[in-house]
Amino acid sequence: MEIDTNSDFSSIDDIKQLQNQHFLSHLSYSLSHSVYYQSKFEALDLSLEDIQSIDDIHKIPVTTKEEIERHNVDFLAVSKKQIIEYVTTSGTLGDPISIALTHQDQQRLARNERRALELCQITAEDTIQITTTLDKRFMAGMAYYLGATALGASVIRSGIGDPDFQWDNIRRFEPTVLIAVPSFAYKFGNYLLSKGIDPKTTSVRKIVCIGEPIRDSNFEPNTLHQKLTELWDVTLHSTYASTEMATAFTECNEGIGGHLLPELIYVEILDDHNQPVAMGEVGEITVTPFGIEGMPLLRYKTGDLARLHTAPCLCGRNTPRLGAIEGRKGQMIKWKGTTLFPQQIENVLNHISEIDNYIIELSLDELGLDKLKVILPDHLDEYIIAQAQRLLQQRLRVNPILEQNTAAYISNEILPKGSRKPRRFVDKRELVH
Amino acid sequence: MEIDTNSDFSSIDDIKQLQNQHFLSHLSYSLSHSVYYQSKFEALDLSLEDIQSIDDIHKIPVTTKEEIERHNVDFLAVSKKQIIEYVTTSGTLGDPISIALTHQDQQRLARNERRALELCQITAEDTIQITTTLDKRFMAGMAYYLGATALGASVIRSGIGDPDFQWDNIRRFEPTVLIAVPSFAYKFGNYLLSKGIDPKTTSVRKIVCIGEPIRDSNFEPNTLHQKLTELWDVTLHSTYASTEMATAFTECNEGIGGHLLPELIYVEILDDHNQPVAMGEVGEITVTPFGIEGMPLLRYKTGDLARLHTAPCLCGRNTPRLGAIEGRKGQMIKWKGTTLFPQQIENVLNHISEIDNYIIELSLDELGLDKLKVILPDHLDEYIIAQAQRLLQQRLRVNPILEQNTAAYISNEILPKGSRKPRRFVDKRELVH
Repeated sequence: MEIDTNSDFSSIDDIKQLQNQHFLSHLSYSLSHSVYYQSKFEALDLSLEDIQSIDDIHKIPVTTKEEIERHNVDFLAVSKKQIIEYVTTSGTLGDPISIALTHQDQQRLARNERRALELCQITAEDTIQITTTLDKRFMAGMAYYLGATALGASVIRSGIGDPDFQWDNIRRFEPTVLIAVPSFAYKFGNYLLSKGIDPKTTSVRKIVCIGEPIRDSNFEPNTLHQKLTELWDVTLHSTYASTEMATAFTECNEGIGGHLLPELIYVEILDDHNQPVAMGEVGEITVTPFGIEGMPLLRYKTGDLARLHTAPCLCGRNTPRLGAIEGRKGQMIKWKGTTLFPQQIENVLNHISEIDNYIIELSLDELGLDKLKVILPDHLDEYIIAQAQRLLQQRLRVNPILEQNTAAYISNEILPKGSRKPRRFVDKRELVH
Repeated sequence: MEIDTNSDFSSIDDIKQLQNQHFLSHLSYSLSHSVYYQSKFEALDLSLEDIQSIDDIHKIPVTTKEEIERHNVDFLAVSKKQIIEYVTTSGTLGDPISIALTHQDQQRLARNERRALELCQITAEDTIQITTTLDKRFMAGMAYYLGATALGASVIRSGIGDPDFQWDNIRRFEPTVLIAVPSFAYKFGNYLLSKGIDPKTTSVRKIVCIGEPIRDSNFEPNTLHQKLTELWDVTLHSTYASTEMATAFTECNEGIGGHLLPELIYVEILDDHNQPVAMGEVGEITVTPFGIEGMPLLRYKTGDLARLHTAPCLCGRNTPRLGAIEGRKGQMIKWKGTTLFPQQIENVLNHISEIDNYIIELSLDELGLDKLKVILPDHLDEYIIAQAQRLLQQRLRVNPILEQNTAAYISNEILPKGSRKPRRFVDKRELVH
């Protein structure tokens, strides 16, 4: 599989043309194979001829998570025999969605992740330790494996958690790269320190970060980023992806947003009325991933909120870049008249270096209103708690209930039994009903 | 990757010729690339010319696990850059051995497992739930994934344990095949029953069994086999493999031994003096896996004890078949003058249908002698314990100490935290020193 990555450095116009070409072929495939899009277009009296180029994409209605949930089978564009794998979304906002992959999708996934790793300047000389799982129907774990081996790098399938085993892998195979959730890399680094091993002296020189932002909306390193680079002698690369889009946005060395892979995905930033927001404004990431055979999507609203940046990157690539995730639509909290997102609370808490772990818990009170709690480890002194309260009030104008609990309780809430990805935001509103 | 499986049905002579051809090319590769075999041959004044055909294989000294442990790096036959993955053995008999794979080895692994699944008559129409892990550097998990997707079957990467999640996969994707450790499939089936779900009414029609024998040395179904087919409406296929050999021996529908894949491996059954045992006798499985690029092996003594069967199979294949594993060399127990293997104790205990779980624990007493205990669940009545004692005495002429403990203790010993494969035999002799 030879990959031409030169297009990333083409002019903005050429990139748009490349995207246009992939879009039209993807649209044509979707309309000839997906029962769901066929009926949707028919119902709207919309045809392929109405969409002459990617500039007409706004004529196509957006696709929501609820639509995929409700009409899952109709989204399938191939016969059951062509399916080689079933994966699911992590289901942070409800029941996981099932996605079916074909051979071609498996190869596309490998290509996507190989491109993402190349953006981090990872080469065939590197050894990559994957500290996320390849079990539990998790697409990302397999994407890393397929992409890294396609690149020719060496892989160690380590799996989630278990710091002793992670260390055994580092000692044994001297990986240069970790693929990790940043807060896990931080916890693991501290575990090594507690065992008398300085993470800086290990072979690890890069951490590919998933699941949590390491910069704020101005690309400034957040506290997690600062803590990680104090602990490890590494460069950090943020990466954003999801099962539905099967494509990653990955930071190059400049660290000013995750680069779009132009032959694999088109991205729009939309408001609540599905209109594009002004350039540089926050809106909902809406994707049209190209070349997907099993379950093609058109204008899928991800629920994640971010900004898009189109100015050429200092690395020389002219591909658009996605900023840090600033919130998640389904996680909007209404708290005493104020609207906010868990990510905003995380950004504030991450500024207090003593706070090494926490969860944000949302439940319903007896009146059915949102009840917001931040649970902090019980080893923290009272003045740290007071500082957190003050900062939250200053920055977000909210006073959530601050509680303390054991480190074990917090760890278990972050990574409950059977889960494959840690979460700091625990939404208990559903459970109450 | 087109696979010619016709050779399995060729005449015994043609199979031998095919093996001869693969052997000579493998030998030539090993001697030109493996530092370890180069020095070994040089030290013995042995050259390629001395080995004209596979009939001369006995001139090559055997390779032991200890040699790979001690000279791991010298076994590597490629540059570090060509390595795409590191895996390790499970380390049941000491520190895990590291094995490096190249792209070609990854493809060979896929081919091997595809062939194994085809022997079970699994096709592109099937959906396979992998209930072992793909993490923890486990070769088998990845082999199943690569082989199954190469075959065109659909895969669900489920991971180890977690019966609720396993059931969610069955409910959601209706797999026709489980890949499972038989005792887990039994436990999981009973879990379903306890939830009011009859395993017989699920979509599962085949279980590919790994890690534990389901037949005795006469190919008669053992108790585990009987219990499984009472619980599930399935056919069972035993499969034997190891990380070092990267090749599986899998039962066809006749269930009379695991078929050798002639283009991928050669097998000898040797005694303690590295001489072939008489046909049909028990000895140590010694393998020469063909076509391995990263860490090629010649005459590797696996430590596993079994018999080889060469009479043509009722399925029409003329490939030799490996009988059930009857013991493991490093697990030989000397107990009050008698020599025995944990597998023999398991075979006896598996005859008592009330005994649904147990561990065999070997430690050293204060005199440094083997101390043998069988730990049974505390819900068992006294007369069952007495029956076990009687049967062990009758069949094996041993009286191990029988103890009872909680089901939780036994489960935890079978699958301790961080392990990727269950074990019923716990050797605590090493720990004492």
